[in-house]
Amino acid sequence: MAMYKAPLRDMRFVLNEVFDAGSLWASMPAMSEVTPDLVDAILEEGAKVTENELFPLNRSGDEEGCTFDDGKVTTPAGFKAAYDTLAESGWLGLGGNPEYGGQGMPKMLTVLFEEMLYAANASFTLYPALNSGAVLLLDSHASDEIKEQYLPPMYEGRWLGTMCLTEPHSGSDLGILRSKAEPNEDGSYTISGTKIFITGGDHDLCENIVHLVLAKLPDAPAGTRGISLFIVPKFLINEDGSSGDANNVNCGSIEHKMGIKGSATCVMNFDGAKGWMVGEPNRGLAAMFTMMNYERLSIGIQGLGLGEVAYQSAMDFAKERLQARAPKGAKCPDKIADPILVHPDVRRMALNVRAFNEGGRAFASYVGMQLDISKYHPDEEQRKQAAELVALLTPVAKAFLTDRGFDVCVEAQQIYGGQGYVREWGAEQYVRDARIAQIYEGTNGIQAMDLVGRKIVANKCGYLAHFASDVRQFMAACDAPELAAYVSQLEAELQRLESLSAWLVEQAGANPEELGAAAVDYLNLFGLVTYGYLWLRMMAAAQAQVAADTSGFYDAKLKVGAHYFKRILPRTLSLEAQVRAGADVLMAMDEDQFYVE
Amino acid sequence: MAMYKAPLRDMRFVLNEVFDAGSLWASMPAMSEVTPDLVDAILEEGAKVTENELFPLNRSGDEEGCTFDDGKVTTPAGFKAAYDTLAESGWLGLGGNPEYGGQGMPKMLTVLFEEMLYAANASFTLYPALNSGAVLLLDSHASDEIKEQYLPPMYEGRWLGTMCLTEPHSGSDLGILRSKAEPNEDGSYTISGTKIFITGGDHDLCENIVHLVLAKLPDAPAGTRGISLFIVPKFLINEDGSSGDANNVNCGSIEHKMGIKGSATCVMNFDGAKGWMVGEPNRGLAAMFTMMNYERLSIGIQGLGLGEVAYQSAMDFAKERLQARAPKGAKCPDKIADPILVHPDVRRMALNVRAFNEGGRAFASYVGMQLDISKYHPDEEQRKQAAELVALLTPVAKAFLTDRGFDVCVEAQQIYGGQGYVREWGAEQYVRDARIAQIYEGTNGIQAMDLVGRKIVANKCGYLAHFASDVRQFMAACDAPELAAYVSQLEAELQRLESLSAWLVEQAGANPEELGAAAVDYLNLFGLVTYGYLWLRMMAAAQAQVAADTSGFYDAKLKVGAHYFKRILPRTLSLEAQVRAGADVLMAMDEDQFYVE
Repeated sequence: MAMYKAPLRDMRFVLNEVFDAGSLWASMPAMSEVTPDLVDAILEEGAKVTENELFPLNRSGDEEGCTFDDGKVTTPAGFKAAYDTLAESGWLGLGGNPEYGGQGMPKMLTVLFEEMLYAANASFTLYPALNSGAVLLLDSHASDEIKEQYLPPMYEGRWLGTMCLTEPHSGSDLGILRSKAEPNEDGSYTISGTKIFITGGDHDLCENIVHLVLAKLPDAPAGTRGISLFIVPKFLINEDGSSGDANNVNCGSIEHKMGIKGSATCVMNFDGAKGWMVGEPNRGLAAMFTMMNYERLSIGIQGLGLGEVAYQSAMDFAKERLQARAPKGAKCPDKIADPILVHPDVRRMALNVRAFNEGGRAFASYVGMQLDISKYHPDEEQRKQAAELVALLTPVAKAFLTDRGFDVCVEAQQIYGGQGYVREWGAEQYVRDARIAQIYEGTNGIQAMDLVGRKIVANKCGYLAHFASDVRQFMAACDAPELAAYVSQLEAELQRLESLSAWLVEQAGANPEELGAAAVDYLNLFGLVTYGYLWLRMMAAAQAQVAADTSGFYDAKLKVGAHYFKRILPRTLSLEAQVRAGADVLMAMDEDQFYVE
Repeated sequence: MAMYKAPLRDMRFVLNEVFDAGSLWASMPAMSEVTPDLVDAILEEGAKVTENELFPLNRSGDEEGCTFDDGKVTTPAGFKAAYDTLAESGWLGLGGNPEYGGQGMPKMLTVLFEEMLYAANASFTLYPALNSGAVLLLDSHASDEIKEQYLPPMYEGRWLGTMCLTEPHSGSDLGILRSKAEPNEDGSYTISGTKIFITGGDHDLCENIVHLVLAKLPDAPAGTRGISLFIVPKFLINEDGSSGDANNVNCGSIEHKMGIKGSATCVMNFDGAKGWMVGEPNRGLAAMFTMMNYERLSIGIQGLGLGEVAYQSAMDFAKERLQARAPKGAKCPDKIADPILVHPDVRRMALNVRAFNEGGRAFASYVGMQLDISKYHPDEEQRKQAAELVALLTPVAKAFLTDRGFDVCVEAQQIYGGQGYVREWGAEQYVRDARIAQIYEGTNGIQAMDLVGRKIVANKCGYLAHFASDVRQFMAACDAPELAAYVSQLEAELQRLESLSAWLVEQAGANPEELGAAAVDYLNLFGLVTYGYLWLRMMAAAQAQVAADTSGFYDAKLKVGAHYFKRILPRTLSLEAQVRAGADVLMAMDEDQFYVE
């Protein structure tokens, strides 16, 4: 049946052996109390709570879904009790600011815990994941008064945050949103408008819900430069900090969706609700980007977590499933047939899944590491460079982790044959739950536009140069003769990426359509090369240990890495050709020629 | 909202302009009454029945699903009435043998009608689609007595056929099936065993259900050479041909699935049911392959039909959806934003979908044409060569049409943004309904093994040589200067396919694991080159007409074709590299290293 065990061995490998996180933490005063032992203990506890509390509710939550009745949303049976367990153990404040009751743990740790959460129960996890972004936004942009009022209960999980951006006519294009905020004399604002696709807009998990809402002031300029940000609690806050009267914000309905059925996706009506501005007038979108960037990495990790649980469950099936004989003759002649992993094509699928999962784990951790450096490193130049890397890699993390997450869920499902299509084994749920991650939080097409536009062309490959130098620095030090061929291959791929990026900068100057035409294929190529770098780092760490190891862990790591380099990384060949084919072929059709009469 | 209009203009183009089907029919005596006008009239009627009777039940059928109660399956509301309309108008005998009441229409026509059926309502279509394969099997292998008894009511749709292969422990590996057939003194057999995943195993659409069942005789040799085929009606047939007493075959339950929810997927228990052998003892699998090959092309068309309806519905959404501005400046400055097709990346997705749909339609028709030639052509050598082409292309049709069908449903869904994930627009249902087509009727991995093993290596690329000569014959005659670059590109791709095929034959001799290691990537490369050929044929037909045309049809055809050649066909680069990476990297892992402890 479906199974999930948090991949602690691999998580430790990434943290300690690949990235030597302990040394990094020791070098940053704000992280001075964070030790590998502490982190390991937290991961162990995280494994227990996700495996034992959340995973058992995954399929039942999908079967039951959320229900909407008379304006109120009820989450599936068991969600509330599991949520209470999670909140009471302090998990919602894990990465939070200690000044307000958070635990101040590094992002390198929280990305791994998030992976466990999403793997165990993606629908459930969206409630706390939105909250984590909301508290980060408030910690970065809200007044001290708001922080004091809101952060402690949100870290405790007594209140949960949401992100209210989309309107019926305004999704990818936020510049045209219509929600309005009228100033009141007491310094508050009256918020009116309809928001859709609001994850956790209403539910029964906790006592209050804190909406972070984009809206326009009466005199706001048009477009994205006229958007402000407001905090709008479901229940107004009393003087003593408790939740008081109901605010004028209501859930109008919930969506019926392909998946993540235990996550309430709400239409929210703000009918003159009372709110308070966060940050500066008309600068709300910039502030919201603090939350959006957080969520983009988080949603990337949704893809990763689902890929991991899909892999584990598929292997649990493969272990028992006997069909046909190995190409070179029976491996288990005493059984009616051999286990399906004797077949090269089944291995191909399993190795694809695993190579993307393990590469994705290293990638998420690498981005987490850069986030920690950008926030906590004592050296300003290091902080700045890390921030640029984060900016560069965030769209890649969101899109590449989720595109590959979906692919590997589909590929894992394929391993089952017909059993993958029926509900019993759960494989089909992972596919449905993974699909949304490519769409929400900025579609992957939007991510790709962000990458090529703001992160590559706008700085003329400046961020990329930092990244490439990081990669080359590692390659220069990677002297294991067993890995020499992979180093050469990666150098060639890095040059491909650099030359294609330079071409893109050149093209974009002459024709802005080239950006959009290239974006998605370019992002995929970028992701493949990035995983190549991370696989090389993993293989170097494994190569150093493999001779003395009897567990098979390092040996497997080297073999999966070889699969990545030989049978996955060549996908860049086609992607480069597709990008270089240019925009003209896409733009040649008249718009009417697309439509069906 | 979701929309479907049968693409009659494109169907006529493929039939008449690309393949000049009228001349072909005129050259084959058995088809002498088939004219383009007759076929066109049938397609027009087919469009009406699928658009008006079946499509309106597509989403409601998905919402309601089939129900199972006390051994009986009920199909969703409206299915029975729509089925009666279809059967009464004679659609179930469209391609059937006129000797027994069929209409003897060519496969080139029926593939197009099947596309309409699957596009309009894939769940519904599976009931008649299984029947069409069953009657073909009976017509090819059953005794005259069985044919006289069964074919007329099955062509009329009073009875429907099923295909009973899979058992709980025996899916891709049919050699280990356990169902038993004991001979009776009256020449009948007593059938016992459990079959699973039986599409249409029970339902309420018609008066009798005709199961074609694989089972083993008491003295049967082990493996696939010991399988016999039996016809087992749900109700025994009276002397007068009517349905009589219930046979000992019962539906034990139905599956809860990711999609095709209106199609009943049944567990069938044969508890000493009475059956009659079809064909020779122990030669049942070969006979069943008549049906399986039929269904493989049919299921390929499921992918195509779903891709088409997904495209149409996505464009209906895109037409109305306004988000952001075109890269070179507003196209509709009087509206709040431009329609999303101004964005190159949205066009990229739409063109991918369309290029695979139109390429797939031509491909399915091409295979249909070869089937007609193999059956009806007066020249034996032509029949033989066409039969070899059918053998070669059937696994490609099943796998490539369904893999691309799923991909394009996912890509069409992506065009919607968040609206693609909620149920309202129907995009997510197409994804779920398309997913099964990659799995059932032999997984696409099994198809790929069939291609590389039986269709490439076993005849040392002999079938491929026929196909390549067909392609080169066309290229030699394709003298439009506008297409010269595409001819060169296709020649290069054909050489890539030939050289890789030769390499595969060589490798397989030394290491049988190379076949499975290469299979799926090789099949995808094969499919891409094949679509290149068909796109060139379509472009040549369009080029000849484009100057005089004001409708934009031929112009669009040339532009979509250019997209295929420039931005899709280069996928072969990576696939070749992946195949040439060989089996060793896949086989290096110990089996235990895949499993999670």
